Order: sequence, then structure tokens, then C-alpha cells
Amino acid sequence: MKIICEKSEILKGIRTVSKAVSVKSSMSIIECILIECSDDEIKLTANNMEFGIETKIKGTIEEKGVVALEARILQEIISHLSESDVTITTDSNNLTTIVCEKSKFNIVGRPGDDFPVLPDVEKNEPLIISEYSFKEIVKQTYFSVSESESNKMMSGELIEINNNKMTVTSLDGHRISIRKIELNYDHEDMKAVVPGKTLNEVTKIISGDTDKDIEIYFTDKHLLFEFDETRVVSRIIEGEYFKVNQMLSNDYETKFDINKKSFTECIERSTLLVKEGDKKPIIIDITDENMELKINSTIGSLDENIDIEKEGRDIKIGFNPKFLIEALRVIDEEVITVYMVNPKAPCIIKDEKESYIYLILPVNFNTIN
Amino acid sequence: MKIICEKSEILKGIRTVSKAVSVKSSMSIIECILIECSDDEIKLTANNMEFGIETKIKGTIEEKGVVALEARILQEIISHLSESDVTITTDSNNLTTIVCEKSKFNIVGRPGDDFPVLPDVEKNEPLIISEYSFKEIVKQTYFSVSESESNKMMSGELIEINNNKMTVTSLDGHRISIRKIELNYDHEDMKAVVPGKTLNEVTKIISGDTDKDIEIYFTDKHLLFEFDETRVVSRIIEGEYFKVNQMLSNDYETKFDINKKSFTECIERSTLLVKEGDKKPIIIDITDENMELKINSTIGSLDENIDIEKEGRDIKIGFNPKFLIEALRVIDEEVITVYMVNPKAPCIIKDEKESYIYLILPVNFNTIN
Repeated sequence: MKIICEKSEILKGIRTVSKAVSVKSSMSIIECILIECSDDEIKLTANNMEFGIETKIKGTIEEKGVVALEARILQEIISHLSESDVTITTDSNNLTTIVCEKSKFNIVGRPGDDFPVLPDVEKNEPLIISEYSFKEIVKQTYFSVSESESNKMMSGELIEINNNKMTVTSLDGHRISIRKIELNYDHEDMKAVVPGKTLNEVTKIISGDTDKDIEIYFTDKHLLFEFDETRVVSRIIEGEYFKVNQMLSNDYETKFDINKKSFTECIERSTLLVKEGDKKPIIIDITDENMELKINSTIGSLDENIDIEKEGRDIKIGFNPKFLIEALRVIDEEVITVYMVNPKAPCIIKDEKESYIYLILPVNFNTIN
Repeated sequence: MKIICEKSEILKGIRTVSKAVSVKSSMSIIECILIECSDDEIKLTANNMEFGIETKIKGTIEEKGVVALEARILQEIISHLSESDVTITTDSNNLTTIVCEKSKFNIVGRPGDDFPVLPDVEKNEPLIISEYSFKEIVKQTYFSVSESESNKMMSGELIEINNNKMTVTSLDGHRISIRKIELNYDHEDMKAVVPGKTLNEVTKIISGDTDKDIEIYFTDKHLLFEFDETRVVSRIIEGEYFKVNQMLSNDYETKFDINKKSFTECIERSTLLVKEGDKKPIIIDITDENMELKINSTIGSLDENIDIEKEGRDIKIGFNPKFLIEALRVIDEEVITVYMVNPKAPCIIKDEKESYIYLILPVNFNTIN
């Protein structure tokens, strides 16, 4: 194999696929990036067996071929070269030479045959949304994907299309996040549970432009993202997702409007008094036009009041501050509406159209507090 | 004690003195910041027993007094308050209340009497240099202060004034860094060894403006930095510094000019092939108008050539790449001159005026390499 590419072009390709490189694996071949050159294209591929990324780069092909190179060292070498043309040559033993101006690196490559190929995904009707919307909706839901691997279903997000409305749902046993957007074209109803990690990695490699689209194809076992010269292939999580609708209720005993920024900053201040790992809840006391927020710890105490507009009963309720903060951070509205039932039932933050719904379970608190 | 200050003013003061707060100490009082209010000034002080910082802040004093507050929590609380006036009140038990708009924090303070006072430093003739020059000269020498505490003298930098020229020297057993600047006024000859850590922390709190000066006062045991509303007091390292002049020689067998950027980037590339902790030297082979740089490791090999302008003998010599890179990074010149004697003698990088001198010891290398 022999190719000549601009340094910036090959580096961009490596950075794109490197999101799918396995960092530490018992299969060392998946710590590599595969370089494949046919007659007319140069393709880079990485595949960590959960999801894979391939991207085409521009360059001159002087000799066809294929080689797998350790991703970390390849990226470091290329990024430290001068801004000039880079020639990559491999011999029949996969010994690879990287030349740029007066620098000449030799590294040992591995046969391309050992590299796991990406599954072929049949292209049906694609889901098409702007890179901007995709990035936003993942940011607004990914934080409540479960970090624990013990429940496979909780590590995914449900993507559902109903009447040309797309709903994305994630939950982790303490909270549920739901975001909805209207599609601007007709798409048949469908649903699939996609690994949260895949969604998050895709947001890192797309530009996020409003006028660029990403196409997503679903099959029973896989999904395929297509944008620019790049394809991301991921498995789908098989099985039935949680029946989230049963957990949502429109009944409430207390409803109030609150300034989102004041509420967020107040909760952030309260966490200053909690040592890491300490599961101290914050206590929210809602009476008339006032929310009083209190926390008491070995470090000190905080007492703070925020004006609210309330309907319904007074309530005193405890929360893990992290769960409130993470939901509040991804809501753009200046004033939000919070719905509560009783100190043991979940609270819900949502807008009137239900374009977002954040459900958070409360925490028991010692009433002496 | 009761004071009212703008949040930004008190936060600026806390950030300034916090550089002298001890992070982990058996004496927990030195993890605090002391707030002292007399009739007419509010002063913040931190003192880690190596050096101390005090700074005055603007504010209204409603009641005189003094209290020591845990620095980390004080800084976190203040930085999370709204941009508004902050009232700090302490009672006779040092219980401290911090109020800002509708937030009210209570934290436990400690008696000010327990806090170690900063030593009084008699003010003689000050050394006056611009904050810019001070920041530069420390950056250009601090990297070769010894990290090990086993040799106290090596943890300091020698500041010397001779004929109105200031010389700053640091060394760590593998290399020596020397920088000289002309003072623009008459100052009597002097020398003192100052802890490198103090110098480095002072560079972090000064603005680095060319038109602002820093004043430095020396006594036998201490030195005092004065700038803006801030004073930094540090002990001096007592004893005689190394006789550096004896280690410098003007004799050489090989002298060459090289482009600094090409040389630096080439050495940086060579380090990519060295695993951390591995003490692999780079081999430099100087012949005629060419420097060839080679490294061979288990990861791969690099062979690179750079044009040079040489006088004298050919030479093959090995170096720890880190020592070369750190010196090259703080030299501003586009082309530098390197002097060598033989593969076992130190190399010297210096300009004609000797405004900088960097001496680096070579490393033995296996000649089979």
C-alpha cells in the first residue's frame, strides 16, 4: 500500500474514527485503525465491537492495500508532523513507513484481515434530522442514561416515531428524561433502543450545524448513521423498553413557576456544603409565594428563599441535588413549571406542550432537619 | 466583626491569597484564610509557613474584628453567590454568617489568634522590575529547579545583582538555566537564594503588565514582594549557592546554528516513540551541514534530518529529550547556537550577549544504537 495525503486531511479522518477505537481490550486488533485503499478511495475504520466508524479521506493512491495501525501512536505521529504531504507505505510484512518532509517513522502494522469488519446495514427509509437537533436532543437526555452496566436496557435511549413526532427517552431508576421534536416530513412509526454511548459519541463527531442533516437507518439488529463522508454503525439493544407512559401522571397537588437560573444557582450553592460521596438531600419547603431551600451538614448550613408562583397545597420534599441540577441545566426556558403530588411521589418538570418532561424521584429526609 | 464587600472584590482577594493556603497540613489553621478588619482596612492573609500572602480589599467595615475561615469552603461559597454585596458577620464564638441577597450561609470560623502572623520584613533598598520581566525570567528558569526536596539549595533560584545587572540561576543536577537582565537604575550588588515555588506562585498572581512594577525587599532571612494592594513574604534559603561559573566554559569543539522550531518539533516527535518512564535517549549525529536525529524503541523508529550551520568537529551525542525541549521552549530566538565539546561533556545553548545560558548534561548511549 502507498498513499499520499495532506496531514490535515488524514488527521481529521483519524480523529473522526478514533471515537470508536477501543482503549483497553483483550483483543488488541480493535485498538487499531484500519486503513484500506481500493482503486478510488482511502477509507479509515475503527470498531470497538459496540459500534464502528468509517470515514473516507482525500488523497493519492499509488498502490492499493490494507493495514491496521495502533490508533494511539498513529494519531500522535500524524499530529506531530509538519503541515505538509504525508506518505504512508507498507511492505508485505505490514512494516509501515510514514514520511513527511525530513521525518521518517517506521512502525509495525498488522494484517488487515484480522480487523473485524463492520456489519452491512440494509438501507430502508431514513430518519432525517439536522445535526443541530440531533446534538441537542442527545445532550438533553443522555445525562440520565444509567452508568451501570447491570441493566442493559437502561444503558440505551428509546427513539420512537409516532405521527411524525420523534420522542427520545432515557431513564436510570431515579429519573426519566423525555424530549420530543416534530419531523418536517412523513416517516412511518417505529421504535428502537440505541446504546446511549453511541449517541453521545456521534454528537462529538458531527458539526452540529442547523443546515446539515444526519441520516439514520434502522434494522432489527443495527442502526447506521450517515453524514459527510462518515458512517457510524451500532448494534441496537434488543427487547422491550420500559413502559414510561405508565409512570407519568398529569395529577398534581402542587404546581409552581420558578425562575430557572435562580433555582439552579441555589441548588448549586447547597451542594457546596456536601462532601463528595455524602448523600445529603436538599430540603425544599414550598409555602404560598415562597420556596425555602435548606441544607445542614457538618461543614455548615444554608438557608435560602426564592420567589415562586404557586397553585395548590404547601409541600416539604427532599431531593438529591445532582438530579435536579442535571435536568435544570438542559432546559432553555427562563421560567419553568414544577408539578408535585406528595413527598414520596416523583416531581415533574415540563412545559405545556410537553416538548420536554423531566421526572425526578424524591429522597426521604429526616423530618427533624 | 461585620463587613460588606462587593462579591467580585472579596473573590479577587481570596483568589490572590489562596496561592499561599496549605492544601494538606497537620496544622489545620494554615488551611484557613484570615480576615482582619481594623478601623480603616480589610485584610486577607494566608500563610503556609513557607511563604505568606496578604492583600487589602475594599469594603464597608461596620464592626472591627478578626476570624479565620477554611479557605476552600470560603472560596466556593463566595464564588457561587450572586454578583451583589456580600455581608460577612462573626459572633463571639467565631460562628460566621455570609449573606448575599436571599442566600444565608452559616459556617464555623476559628479564632484569629491561632493564625500564624507573617514575619515583619524591614524595607531596605528595593529591587524594582516590571511585572512582565519578572514573570518572563521566572518562566525561563523555574523548569530546572529541582523537584526533589532532598537538596534544599536546588529547590531555590539564585537572584544576584552585579553592576546593575540581575542574574537568575536554577539547576537540578542535570542542567543549569541562567537568565540576565539589565536594571534601568542603580542597585547595590547583592545575592539571595529564593524558594522556586514562591517565585512561581508570585508569577501567578501578578498581572504581568509591562508598565506595572513589582518591588522586592531582601533581608538576611526573608524577602518581601510588594505590588498593588498585595504583599508576599517568603523565607530565604540560607547558605552558599553552587559555584555555577566554574561549570561554564567558553571552550568548544563543535558549534552550530539551528532553527529552533524545527529542532524542538523534531525532538517532540522523537518522544512519541518512548513509553513514559522509559529513559531512552535521543541520539544526535552532527556531520557537516546536517544534524541527524535517531531514536529506536519497541514502538518503532524515527530518523530525521535538519539543516544546520556548523563550525568545528563532527560529533555524535545522546540527550534526555525532556531536558532539551524544556530549554528550547523558553528561548524566543528563531535561530539558536549550540556549543559542544565531546559526548561526555555538557552542551551549552546561549546567545552572544549571554542574556541566556542553558547547560545540559548528555546521556551515555549504547554505540550499537
